[in-house]
Amino acid sequence: MDFNPPALPIISRVRERLDSWLDAVRQGDIDRIASHYAADIVAYDAIMQLQFKGIDAYKEHWRACITMCNGPMTFEVDDVHIIADETLALIHCVFRCGGAGDNGEEKATWMRMTSAMRKSGEQWLVVHEHFSAPFDVVTGKALFELAP
Amino acid sequence: MDFNPPALPIISRVRERLDSWLDAVRQGDIDRIASHYAADIVAYDAIMQLQFKGIDAYKEHWRACITMCNGPMTFEVDDVHIIADETLALIHCVFRCGGAGDNGEEKATWMRMTSAMRKSGEQWLVVHEHFSAPFDVVTGKALFELAP
Repeated sequence: MDFNPPALPIISRVRERLDSWLDAVRQGDIDRIASHYAADIVAYDAIMQLQFKGIDAYKEHWRACITMCNGPMTFEVDDVHIIADETLALIHCVFRCGGAGDNGEEKATWMRMTSAMRKSGEQWLVVHEHFSAPFDVVTGKALFELAP
Repeated sequence: MDFNPPALPIISRVRERLDSWLDAVRQGDIDRIASHYAADIVAYDAIMQLQFKGIDAYKEHWRACITMCNGPMTFEVDDVHIIADETLALIHCVFRCGGAGDNGEEKATWMRMTSAMRKSGEQWLVVHEHFSAPFDVVTGKALFELAP
């Protein structure tokens, strides 16, 4: 975590919101996931579309993602960086994401996440999210075997 | 662009840095590209690796990318959003990226970009960048035919 003493209480608050969102994701609780987002969020997800604009479109996409998961979702973050100012915060990290495969065994892969929160009244809300896996330039395939 | 009157001069300054970086990218000028980055940048590029830590590793990666391009690089941004505070700024946009193929014809694809700048003295430097193409969950292939 970046050392920036005046921003420490803000960084704690942002980390708390991140952990709350992570818990909602692992529970597959779509309403609770969505409660962390601003109404006008613009999201770049790792799959399917170039972008999702607005909470309704993005919530619908989350519903499709949760439905795709066979049981509880694996979502573990690592190497979390938080940089914050009075009203704006940036989070980036790598994360291990997956679920149970057809045989019940966990299938998970490392990806990257960038998230930006903005203070709105007393609340910190996510205004932008970007998830992705890098791809191989020769095969055009996503690289699922990378690890941090 | 987000309407946030007190931040307008900052947003103009950040847009100016973005345009300067874009010009350096199109020229393939690696030193000038790198001059926009903080020494401790953490970058998630669209290809090859999960992450690049520090200016030296990332500059080396940029050198490989520029070498891969056959002549001048296409790099056009669209739907640019800038959100800024006194010392932190978030940029996100879609961009059309590519170069000339073997037959000299342009081959380009739409991707997504998130960038964060931090004020360091009088300078705004990029501390984090995230580029990506979404992938298809069935084939695992990057989706190169999407358009905004």
